Amino acid sequence: MIRLRWWTTAVVCLAAFPGVSWAQPDRDVLYQTSTLGALMIGIYDGPVTFGQLRQHGDFGLGTFNGLNGEMIALDGKFYQITADGIAHEVKDSTCTPFAAVTFFDRDHTAPIEGERSFTQLTEHLGGLLPTENVFYAIRIDGTFSYVKTRSVPKQERPYPKLVDVIANQPTFEWRDVKGTLVGFRCPDYVRGVNVAGYHFHFIDDARTKGGHVLECRLRGGTVTTDLTRELLLALPESEDFDRAALENDDEQATHHPE
Amino acid sequence: MIRLRWWTTAVVCLAAFPGVSWAQPDRDVLYQTSTLGALMIGIYDGPVTFGQLRQHGDFGLGTFNGLNGEMIALDGKFYQITADGIAHEVKDSTCTPFAAVTFFDRDHTAPIEGERSFTQLTEHLGGLLPTENVFYAIRIDGTFSYVKTRSVPKQERPYPKLVDVIANQPTFEWRDVKGTLVGFRCPDYVRGVNVAGYHFHFIDDARTKGGHVLECRLRGGTVTTDLTRELLLALPESEDFDRAALENDDEQATHHPE
Repeated sequence: MIRLRWWTTAVVCLAAFPGVSWAQPDRDVLYQTSTLGALMIGIYDGPVTFGQLRQHGDFGLGTFNGLNGEMIALDGKFYQITADGIAHEVKDSTCTPFAAVTFFDRDHTAPIEGERSFTQLTEHLGGLLPTENVFYAIRIDGTFSYVKTRSVPKQERPYPKLVDVIANQPTFEWRDVKGTLVGFRCPDYVRGVNVAGYHFHFIDDARTKGGHVLECRLRGGTVTTDLTRELLLALPESEDFDRAALENDDEQATHHPE
Repeated sequence: MIRLRWWTTAVVCLAAFPGVSWAQPDRDVLYQTSTLGALMIGIYDGPVTFGQLRQHGDFGLGTFNGLNGEMIALDGKFYQITADGIAHEVKDSTCTPFAAVTFFDRDHTAPIEGERSFTQLTEHLGGLLPTENVFYAIRIDGTFSYVKTRSVPKQERPYPKLVDVIANQPTFEWRDVKGTLVGFRCPDYVRGVNVAGYHFHFIDDARTKGGHVLECRLRGGTVTTDLTRELLLALPESEDFDRAALENDDEQATHHPE
């Protein structure tokens, strides 16, 4: 019997696969399943599970099959904000028709002082971010004197358009609540693919409630940003998606409700 | 000394890196550096080398720093069509400001019979491709009774817009030439990012001449397609790119000259 020293075999083992990537999954990629345009016109079911999605990130936004609530991913945990505004942890077997995630690695942190509305907050962020032409994952941990969110109720086929769903969306208001805004800023040129500009979901510190942010007043907190230059757009293997009459409709993209 | 059987070590070696990807580079991804919008407004220099680009594909389109000609990648070889219409092999150290490549793996092949103009050819392709909502790499090998291409001459800073460069573009006409159309069809919703619809470059069988296709008459040939559902948009690490005043200008996207 030939006896090889263990490290010899290890070296051979490593060298024998020249095409193999030894890198960890690339963390600095914004991964997205499906497109905003598809969601807008009612493509509410997709084949991607949260078990698959979490391979691509620990931070992000999205929704669930049947448009069953708002998704928020934070610190590696995935939450479903159902139509009552309540947060539930998501099972790996649950599926999503639209979601965007990344591994959140801090590039910059800055305190935010003084009370700011949602508009004032995004204007402030605009001054912090170095270029308009790339993607940012953004988390804002703080104390909010006011937060208004919405969620969306599960839909039944035939699915209405998203704009019609949110015409009757349940909204929630909280005062003096600690929590986190989780979101992205995407460049204008990807409208139709994702939300151009800022898009935030909220979850409270206790991870019990939240939703898609409609308005807020941040009393003070910390903003942390993760700049990424890579977008991996993964289109679902789905007859619904393939048959969808997608359009790069400026109206829909500019007045995005998701 | 502890003696381990070689296969024990190999198993340990394989099992010890749970985060390691054993997959080959994902071949079914359309990889793109920079955006069409950036190229349109004169971002003609980028940091990506062809040595890097070929890690992401063996088939595709693009241009060169300084807008120095049309790029065509076919069967793993990268060619530069200079402003005289002549094809040159590209060095790995050369850089590109805009390119899109994939590993071409045949999904479908079909003969194309009967003479067809470029418009008739793309209409014919439209009937072959199963959905408008995904990406296709397309190669058409055949005999052309006529091909008209253009290339672009190297530019000097300050760079003019692409639309102004091609107002004076050199064009080339060939008759009774065998060669290959290399291109992509991208869905409408990515306009601003890449060319919405069809975009082809041509190279002759001898790999001596070609360019960006303006018109052709295909006498007969074969179309081979590679459907992909993933787009990896990689934005360049470049001050030029970061400072660019990018807009999702429908006019520019619809009347794309690249």
